[in-house]
Amino acid sequence: MFYVSIKLLVAGGTIDKQYDELTGNVIFAQTHIPELLTQARCTAPVTIETVFLKDSLDMTLEDRQALYIQANLAQEDKILITHGTDTMGETARYLGERHLQKTIVLLGAMIPYCFKQSDSLFNLGFALASVQCLPHGVYVAMNGQVFTWDNVVKNKLKGVFERG
Amino acid sequence: MFYVSIKLLVAGGTIDKQYDELTGNVIFAQTHIPELLTQARCTAPVTIETVFLKDSLDMTLEDRQALYIQANLAQEDKILITHGTDTMGETARYLGERHLQKTIVLLGAMIPYCFKQSDSLFNLGFALASVQCLPHGVYVAMNGQVFTWDNVVKNKLKGVFERG
Amino acid sequence: MFYVSIKLLVAGGTIDKQYDELTGNVIFAQTHIPELLTQARCTAPVTIETVFLKDSLDMTLEDRQALYIQANLAQEDKILITHGTDTMGETARYLGERHLQKTIVLLGAMIPYCFKQSDSLFNLGFALASVQCLPHGVYVAMNGQVFTWDNVVKNKLKGVFERG
Amino acid sequence: MFYVSIKLLVAGGTIDKQYDELTGNVIFAQTHIPELLTQARCTAPVTIETVFLKDSLDMTLEDRQALYIQANLAQEDKILITHGTDTMGETARYLGERHLQKTIVLLGAMIPYCFKQSDSLFNLGFALASVQCLPHGVYVAMNGQVFTWDNVVKNKLKGVFERG
Repeated sequence: MFYVSIKLLVAGGTIDKQYDELTGNVIFAQTHIPELLTQARCTAPVTIETVFLKDSLDMTLEDRQALYIQANLAQEDKILITHGTDTMGETARYLGERHLQKTIVLLGAMIPYCFKQSDSLFNLGFALASVQCLPHGVYVAMNGQVFTWDNVVKNKLKGVFERG
Repeated sequence: MFYVSIKLLVAGGTIDKQYDELTGNVIFAQTHIPELLTQARCTAPVTIETVFLKDSLDMTLEDRQALYIQANLAQEDKILITHGTDTMGETARYLGERHLQKTIVLLGAMIPYCFKQSDSLFNLGFALASVQCLPHGVYVAMNGQVFTWDNVVKNKLKGVFERG
Repeated sequence: MFYVSIKLLVAGGTIDKQYDELTGNVIFAQTHIPELLTQARCTAPVTIETVFLKDSLDMTLEDRQALYIQANLAQEDKILITHGTDTMGETARYLGERHLQKTIVLLGAMIPYCFKQSDSLFNLGFALASVQCLPHGVYVAMNGQVFTWDNVVKNKLKGVFERG
Repeated sequence: MFYVSIKLLVAGGTIDKQYDELTGNVIFAQTHIPELLTQARCTAPVTIETVFLKDSLDMTLEDRQALYIQANLAQEDKILITHGTDTMGETARYLGERHLQKTIVLLGAMIPYCFKQSDSLFNLGFALASVQCLPHGVYVAMNGQVFTWDNVVKNKLKGVFERG
């Protein structure tokens, strides 16, 4: 009953940041999601599509529209979106207000996958189960908890998501 | 609605294996689950209890009874069990046939947490969402999929769980 | 014959960069050198002193003077300096022209210690052997090679050190 | 003056141990030394030759003869040998008593490269500098120190090498 196709839309965010040796900064080059799924030994049918790779502070209304369009166009009714944490709540709200008949789960990370102490793998696992189990709606899955789109805020001081 | 207490029973398995420098083998010394939850930045209320640390090939009927008793005694109705993969199906069946009015999710790993390429964090995240979302019953959560206790088998050649 | 005290002067550089969750950038907070030496299981007598933590592009003449003064003041005649790679050659030249009767070895990294793929541990090991074995003089130890202060340049396109 | 060819003879030992998912034990499958040199961004000319992959407790006189023969046959006069720590001292003595006109440095690790907390990269860096700098002779390079073949013993309780 759980073996259903899942679409994973890549929107960037901390998960995919990597170190640029030329500049000494963290940048986006390509998504690492396929590596994460390999390390996870995931056999669930996940199709990955990179919509864009952005710091979520740089996301525009057009970017959110693009995510909505891709989620809507997808054959699958189970949609994961990897996304920066800073405006994850805004994107969740944007999508939630459009009431797609799909289960959409947004996830991100506080530490990039390339770092030893990354929370990426945990968060991807957590979101992948959430998207398979939850009813239609839009959710944020972070810190080992599921939040509905209309009741979530990032506590920027603590670096964790909370209800509110 | 998802903010509920979870009991995590530690039974050992690959997740918790570590390298013993004296003998050059992998052994059990103590559970690493608290470290995983810290790396995960998990804020869900998880209470950890080590029942035992065993290779699941060494588990006895008494061990399975002990897990049943602890699951039953627990205040929480959401129970995670970290467990070796080799006999995870047997323990799931043992627990499933007892029809506790709880959601019990078993998880494990193919590569210990101490290894760079471990699937532990992903699997813990996946199971933690599963236990919060699923109805009462006993499940195996591995490879990014949820299996019911009466329909799961480990394919030992491929090292993955399948229906059957 | 090799058991001699070594002074390690920390000047920052890529080794010590870490991820800042608040800003999403890499920053300096504190040196990770003690962690590296612990992971290395080093029993050689190394005394660590943080002179400053800087990107080497931000280093001034005063910073180089400070390193010279600390190297000169040190009881030890074997001095390691962890340093950013971009101006490591300049600092090596500055120190080399002052002809201290000491063995001074500069080292750095292309990828911070906090990243999975870091070259930091290798470079620290390489430099620690170099400083114990080499005669008085100033050297850059990078890429598994020792360079003298008057014959080293960073090839910024390739990200490696070369003679020249 | 330091840019000289180096032969690295692989004899196994902890560095190259990896996790076997089928048995749950650590085993030898293939050497990881090329991966280490890539992570190290080493540009020194190192030629790798796998002589065998063994736990050093299983090494025989024939194995030590094979290492001697390969060291002798090598064009290079700078020889690294990756080796298990338990009998590294015996192999060093065997080679040292044969007085080859070469610099031979043995190295190993307490924790395999596949583990997060491995000392392998540090030890390889340390040994690679040692073999380039030291005069002819046979040495053990471990714990950030160089030991001569006739004055080294592994303290098995502490898991470190000492003079004696």
